[in-house]
Amino acid sequence: MQTRNTVKALRNAVKAAKQEGKKISFVPTMGNLHEGHLQLVRRAKAVSDFVVVSIYVNPLQFGAGEDIDNYPRTLAADKQKLFAEGADLLFTPSTEEMYPNINAASPTVVSVPKISETLCGQKRPGHFAGVATVVSKLFNMVQPEVAIFGKKDFQQLLVIRKMVEDLCLPIEILGVTTARAEDGLALSSRNGYLNENERDIAPKLHRILLDYRDAIASGFDNYLDLQRYGMEDLRQAGFEPDYFSIRDAKTLEDITVDTEEAVIAVAANLGVTRLIDNTTLAINPSSDWGMLASQ
Amino acid sequence: MQTRNTVKALRNAVKAAKQEGKKISFVPTMGNLHEGHLQLVRRAKAVSDFVVVSIYVNPLQFGAGEDIDNYPRTLAADKQKLFAEGADLLFTPSTEEMYPNINAASPTVVSVPKISETLCGQKRPGHFAGVATVVSKLFNMVQPEVAIFGKKDFQQLLVIRKMVEDLCLPIEILGVTTARAEDGLALSSRNGYLNENERDIAPKLHRILLDYRDAIASGFDNYLDLQRYGMEDLRQAGFEPDYFSIRDAKTLEDITVDTEEAVIAVAANLGVTRLIDNTTLAINPSSDWGMLASQ
Repeated sequence: MQTRNTVKALRNAVKAAKQEGKKISFVPTMGNLHEGHLQLVRRAKAVSDFVVVSIYVNPLQFGAGEDIDNYPRTLAADKQKLFAEGADLLFTPSTEEMYPNINAASPTVVSVPKISETLCGQKRPGHFAGVATVVSKLFNMVQPEVAIFGKKDFQQLLVIRKMVEDLCLPIEILGVTTARAEDGLALSSRNGYLNENERDIAPKLHRILLDYRDAIASGFDNYLDLQRYGMEDLRQAGFEPDYFSIRDAKTLEDITVDTEEAVIAVAANLGVTRLIDNTTLAINPSSDWGMLASQ
Repeated sequence: MQTRNTVKALRNAVKAAKQEGKKISFVPTMGNLHEGHLQLVRRAKAVSDFVVVSIYVNPLQFGAGEDIDNYPRTLAADKQKLFAEGADLLFTPSTEEMYPNINAASPTVVSVPKISETLCGQKRPGHFAGVATVVSKLFNMVQPEVAIFGKKDFQQLLVIRKMVEDLCLPIEILGVTTARAEDGLALSSRNGYLNENERDIAPKLHRILLDYRDAIASGFDNYLDLQRYGMEDLRQAGFEPDYFSIRDAKTLEDITVDTEEAVIAVAANLGVTRLIDNTTLAINPSSDWGMLASQ
């Protein structure tokens, strides 16, 4: 596995791979790699000939009061894992390399309005513009044919998909199913912040999601009530919930007759740790509405 | 010369040219081509093997009250001119092709803060975000190695340069000297709106710019006064000026001791027609400051 830390060296390596006719894939990460990331790398390997992984803790997507300095950095262990998975190139740029003018004139922003402003965007203003900006930079640096993101960060995946579609980037975006611990907890770098008691509570987040998934699947469709109950269940379980939202999985807006797939998305705090998770399900309200109309 | 009107057909044609080892250049335009545009095409031909020209009147960069419907469209004549210049491919997308979701969810925006907000950006809020967004889309569609813009739209050129640098797009941006009529008037599609009397007045815009260029070159450096006098000269000549500004040519901010090149940029109305023009000059205030210090 090659490691590169400048854009120029990265581009030379990618260019050489392209000249050999290789299909390039890309997995952007912030490091502190766990099994969830490695599943992204495996998918990348399955769909391409040359896997580029980046590790970069992007300051643009951290808000005021969000502690970028204590974000876990485990480069040596990350390298070993990526090497074991057979990644081809690791890109580890410095902030000087990513943002040479970060302290100078206001840098260019890529923003995906509306879809960035709901759910996590409400608590984290500017977060998704930070994500979209750094991902579009990384895309321009790597120029992959395919890029892989986890579905755990569901809103992020939608923001990236919309950015790619709107800006006509020639990149296919693949979403990979969330990797989970045996007890159902979605894998996340942030799980490392949980103390023992919090770690015991944490899997209930997923359990509650599945309960509501089942409830909707079995016909409950008063989403406002379900959201209220969901918030209450989270509180009862020991979380301080930010949101428990049932939305259209394409637009993140409220469910309508046109909704084909719903997402139940949740963000909840356990002590200092903010956890997110989600689950999706096909819904078909039009058939119910048809039944009502025929009654 | 090939003509293409879908992204897919464009990409196939560009891909074929790249496979032949050709270097791709790109000249984005809004059509109604005049000698100024053709000079961009000639420069493109001189620095590449395959010249792509786009003609697209971009709704995003027209503000409320700016009349996109009456923007001159002269496709047949434009095609003849481009053919005569030896352009290789003309891309003429429809708005459905450029913005398939223009009426749906809020589209992704590429914005270059600060530098977009001054000068023309003050009178035309959102204009440069519209330019940056459509140009980044066109760049992603064409994926040229080099793109060519006119220096007449000085602020636009700076916005594009900064966007390319900030987003790390692998594209070289070339600026081409403004083409002028014999009497000095900068060539522009908008000149066609001028009546005979206005056309007689119009060249004074350039004349006044040159006068102030000479004044600064000969040592005048009270830029605030010069700007006031410039506005007054424009009014005397029959214009309704928007601005007459002397700025750092890199940042569009006020001249400082670090300024190496200044731009005098002007926007002024003649009847319903808004004209812009500019001129640049090297300045070296540090040597004057050195003189002062030694006095």
